[in-house]
Amino acid sequence: MPKTVIGIDLGGTKIHGVLMNEKNEILEEVKVLTEAKKGLKAVLEKLYHMAEVLKRKDTKAIGIAVAGPMDYEAGIVYEGPNLPGWKNVPLKKHFEKKLGIPTFIENDAKCFALAEYHLGAGKGSEYMVGITLGTGIGSGIVLHGDLYRGRDNIAGELGHMTIDYNGHKCHCGNHGCLERYASGTAIAERTLRHLKKKDYKTDLTKADLTARKIYAAALDGDPLASHIMEDTGKYFGIGIANIVNVLNPDKIVLGGSASRSFPVFKKRMFTEIKERAFHPGSTLKVVRQRLSAPGPIGAALIARAGMAKK
Amino acid sequence: MPKTVIGIDLGGTKIHGVLMNEKNEILEEVKVLTEAKKGLKAVLEKLYHMAEVLKRKDTKAIGIAVAGPMDYEAGIVYEGPNLPGWKNVPLKKHFEKKLGIPTFIENDAKCFALAEYHLGAGKGSEYMVGITLGTGIGSGIVLHGDLYRGRDNIAGELGHMTIDYNGHKCHCGNHGCLERYASGTAIAERTLRHLKKKDYKTDLTKADLTARKIYAAALDGDPLASHIMEDTGKYFGIGIANIVNVLNPDKIVLGGSASRSFPVFKKRMFTEIKERAFHPGSTLKVVRQRLSAPGPIGAALIARAGMAKK
Repeated sequence: MPKTVIGIDLGGTKIHGVLMNEKNEILEEVKVLTEAKKGLKAVLEKLYHMAEVLKRKDTKAIGIAVAGPMDYEAGIVYEGPNLPGWKNVPLKKHFEKKLGIPTFIENDAKCFALAEYHLGAGKGSEYMVGITLGTGIGSGIVLHGDLYRGRDNIAGELGHMTIDYNGHKCHCGNHGCLERYASGTAIAERTLRHLKKKDYKTDLTKADLTARKIYAAALDGDPLASHIMEDTGKYFGIGIANIVNVLNPDKIVLGGSASRSFPVFKKRMFTEIKERAFHPGSTLKVVRQRLSAPGPIGAALIARAGMAKK
Repeated sequence: MPKTVIGIDLGGTKIHGVLMNEKNEILEEVKVLTEAKKGLKAVLEKLYHMAEVLKRKDTKAIGIAVAGPMDYEAGIVYEGPNLPGWKNVPLKKHFEKKLGIPTFIENDAKCFALAEYHLGAGKGSEYMVGITLGTGIGSGIVLHGDLYRGRDNIAGELGHMTIDYNGHKCHCGNHGCLERYASGTAIAERTLRHLKKKDYKTDLTKADLTARKIYAAALDGDPLASHIMEDTGKYFGIGIANIVNVLNPDKIVLGGSASRSFPVFKKRMFTEIKERAFHPGSTLKVVRQRLSAPGPIGAALIARAGMAKK
């Protein structure tokens, strides 16, 4: 008898769920707005409802992808950065009580990486790193098909590698984290600083401070936007060179909204990697995500992996 | 019938060999001066001679630990940083022709890590990183008992992680490598800069610029030496925080001559790790090496692992 799993990606803007069979085919797909402002209880109700809609008699497990720090083993979300009221939420327990189906939670960037590895741009890779460039920088390391978690399940915080120990203060308490230089937020902040300094010609205004608009302006040849993209390639290349020196992956898959600008920053990125990685001869490929919904698919894979371990 | 393996550590100063049985007991041990200045041929003869002295009828393989870049699969040493005349030396081929015994080569820091993992301070660890602090910074990552090599066998170059992208130029071509801040060489160079500036009281002179002497002076309360050790702890802590963020190891084992000063720099190092690692709750332990000869022991383990793969 075939068995299905549910995967749900809980984002700050929308909740996206899928029902997946054993062949990794998507049987059902649902998307709703999170309306995070309505608070914990309202969002939980939406999640339950989505799971009820997706589930079939043969549904064996539920996986949920969430941003922010968590105890994935206990299934507790410590904090939802874009989810007001989410503090120490025992999501696994809530779901198992409400739906009676084994539930597993995981960091959304790790779900992204796992989905791209098995079904997307990472197929055929052995040592893959998935990186999401959005508000922050998230990542997941997948070695031979499994998430690499390290001793305390805190491996893969690549956005918080120090690349400039005297550099910009990060919300995490550290100084000079990669995230402060190459995330979507960092791109917008750097653009604002230049707008104030007026040191580059530009058609951009303070209303255009999203990675997407800056990317579009760079494509149009806007001098400030082009400079910002050049710098983004440089900083991101520094981070990737560190990843090469430590992990020597065969593939890095980029996702997240700010990765759309990859075509304009990749040349500078590769120059920087070449200059900084210790060994020549790395066969590294850096590519963009291939799946349109890696989040819920990765969550479904987490659900299946969780069941396999039981 | 018991089987033995030979492990040889080829250093710039001395060559150190062991004969090891299947229980990892050292049956024989030999040490001679390298006399590297005499050139490639003379050093090769010393290596052959040592292997001849150590080998028994049941000796199944030879492992050789060497510093510097190499193709470990083909068994070619690209360059011996402390070995004049060593360029693209097919060490494996030479040995197998001369002695008729399968031979494997490996980077000396990786041999260090493997030996400490199986027989030294890393025992019982699952995610271990071995780091040697000497002229440079070498390292080996050992996951569940095996060296982690990555796609092109270039993983684990932790000394060349960028911690300050605008920082000091490194011999590798990069700027701001950890090695330029926390190696024995970096400790000596920083001390020299302060001696010239005369900004700290000290009894140290230009004749005392070794990590060992600076450490001894710090133990005596010398103000400059104490400052240098404080800074070493800071820089090394930055590097280790990066390793925690990426790999989340349970243990880091320090070796190499400059690691003797660990007792004086470790307090500052742990402060820095705490401030910079993204997740609290890491159970990381940082300890010094326990083996007196990890190099040849690690080389012997490499020999055995090489045979097992065949």
